[in-house]
Amino acid sequence: MKQLQFKLSRWMQGGGPDSDIIISSRVRIARNLKEHSFPCLASDQETEAAMSKIGAVVSEMAELKSFKYWSMDALSELEKKALVEKHLISPMLASNSKHGAFYLRADEAISIMVNEEDHLRIQAILPGLQLSEAWAEASHFDDLLEQKLDYAFDDHYGYLTACPTNIGTGLRASVMLHLPAMIMSGQINRLLGALSQVGLAVRGLYGEGTEIIGNLVQVSNQVTLGQSEDEIINNLQGIIRQVVEQEQSARQTMLDKQRANIADKSWRALGLLKYAQVISSQEAIQLISDLRLGYDLGLIKSVDHRLLNELLVLIRPACLQLLAGRELNENERDLERPVRIKEVLNRQGNTNFIED
Amino acid sequence: MKQLQFKLSRWMQGGGPDSDIIISSRVRIARNLKEHSFPCLASDQETEAAMSKIGAVVSEMAELKSFKYWSMDALSELEKKALVEKHLISPMLASNSKHGAFYLRADEAISIMVNEEDHLRIQAILPGLQLSEAWAEASHFDDLLEQKLDYAFDDHYGYLTACPTNIGTGLRASVMLHLPAMIMSGQINRLLGALSQVGLAVRGLYGEGTEIIGNLVQVSNQVTLGQSEDEIINNLQGIIRQVVEQEQSARQTMLDKQRANIADKSWRALGLLKYAQVISSQEAIQLISDLRLGYDLGLIKSVDHRLLNELLVLIRPACLQLLAGRELNENERDLERPVRIKEVLNRQGNTNFIED
Repeated sequence: MKQLQFKLSRWMQGGGPDSDIIISSRVRIARNLKEHSFPCLASDQETEAAMSKIGAVVSEMAELKSFKYWSMDALSELEKKALVEKHLISPMLASNSKHGAFYLRADEAISIMVNEEDHLRIQAILPGLQLSEAWAEASHFDDLLEQKLDYAFDDHYGYLTACPTNIGTGLRASVMLHLPAMIMSGQINRLLGALSQVGLAVRGLYGEGTEIIGNLVQVSNQVTLGQSEDEIINNLQGIIRQVVEQEQSARQTMLDKQRANIADKSWRALGLLKYAQVISSQEAIQLISDLRLGYDLGLIKSVDHRLLNELLVLIRPACLQLLAGRELNENERDLERPVRIKEVLNRQGNTNFIED
Repeated sequence: MKQLQFKLSRWMQGGGPDSDIIISSRVRIARNLKEHSFPCLASDQETEAAMSKIGAVVSEMAELKSFKYWSMDALSELEKKALVEKHLISPMLASNSKHGAFYLRADEAISIMVNEEDHLRIQAILPGLQLSEAWAEASHFDDLLEQKLDYAFDDHYGYLTACPTNIGTGLRASVMLHLPAMIMSGQINRLLGALSQVGLAVRGLYGEGTEIIGNLVQVSNQVTLGQSEDEIINNLQGIIRQVVEQEQSARQTMLDKQRANIADKSWRALGLLKYAQVISSQEAIQLISDLRLGYDLGLIKSVDHRLLNELLVLIRPACLQLLAGRELNENERDLERPVRIKEVLNRQGNTNFIED
């Protein structure tokens, strides 16, 4: 399992449309087996039976053979949390599942979770603004599985799910945006109001109930019922495109009016990331944001999205502890974090990297 | 004249006893010519006459032949201010002197000012705690000049000076101390009270009436009358030794209790000095102080006092403008400053300097 956190998931490798503003696009589909209780209501035997049934089906599918299977029981708490930090599995699967498991494609773009809140959660996560592509990927595996599994489906409601907020399409689509200019200029507040009015949920980096830090904002659909999957995806994609335009315009204004200060902030972030000896998680996320903005505005050329995404993941508590090979308390993590950050920043090759 | 600011004065080269805490020791002697009005009361012709008399004497002295002569009239405002920033001449000579001039020894440790507040001000400035040595140097040139010049001297009061605060010995001795640990721990306040009680004056980096910034404190004698020169020097030297011990003890406590945070602060300062694009004079002085502390505590090995002293001088407004070769307003200076700082920090040779 330890090799996981050293691997750059496909979304971490960067690229994709509008990747200067959109870090990743994610789609997940919730599905349940007919004639099996939802995991939260099921007995131990029932969840085991659901797992067996799904396992049998998966093992027969050529396209899923290359997927790596992980039983949650076989993973340490740290390993589970690191998978959440990489956005590969849900916090719920990590913290609270009976006979939970997941299948992970080699590029880590597709995860199929078993016995999470629902029997099946099929997730696709891609870099940049690729909601349609992520939907196509997830849908493809959903179709494959549906050929062999009887899904709980109601003609009136659609796909049935453990929580009523997922019923219908069972589809949750979300994007992770980096909005430093809108946040610094205060335009974010109007945006948040507007997004909520059109039925979208806004969250911080760590999901539900978390504050916005490092100028990272997750936007997702709330409504899963009464719209087709394509409508949900296209609606979200259209709104996100508008947000992208607003952020681009806010960045241009910032660049026109205070170029030196923005450059200064970005370069200082690089200096601190390379030289500090003690860095909290929150400060690191903010510094990475400042550095990302400098890169995206063409003010700093010596980093790239791949490196920035790697930093964003490895500074988190569980990844950090896995890298260190031992449990670390908060103070110890604040000392370990800058060591790991320097490793990544120095790996780039000195002459190219150090100074412009 | 422009070559001056690129030259490291002897005090800037570092070294000397207790140089981890004492940046420099300075002694200046005020002398006036008998039968010549003090410069502030003198007519143009009279100050010119005093200058001529002193000039004639100096030109005959073998030991002073190598000294460079500068008439204040021949210097630009920036050049005068840069000399003040290097502590080679007094602010008064720079700003307000008729027929003012000075002689400067090649190592810039000895300056002999003419027509400042007094006809003659003989200054010696050395690195580290070298009050006796500075006194010996200044006294030597005083003796030389006294052989050929009639000094205004009163059997009861001693040497007569334009300002009564200098009368008697005409001696002002001062040291520039770096006291980060006493300032951070708050012990400085008790010290300031104690110093004032024993008749010493405490000032900031820029002299009289300036605030303490960058943890730099100037301590000097106030009393010039009723004590011999040796008493003044030994008294100040003794008290400064006690301050040095207190600062050493405060640093040790800091190192024992919060080593990681002190290291962090110093390394962050290095990171910011190497990467920031906009730096105010005040911030630069503070960062240089943080970096100096890291070096003096053995936490950072890639800088030295010579480099730190050079930084401390070149970040100041006039030196910065002379280096740039043109006048700069405050905003322009804040952009020029980091460029010059990087030049100095990168000059060290990359492999040795960049990272530990």
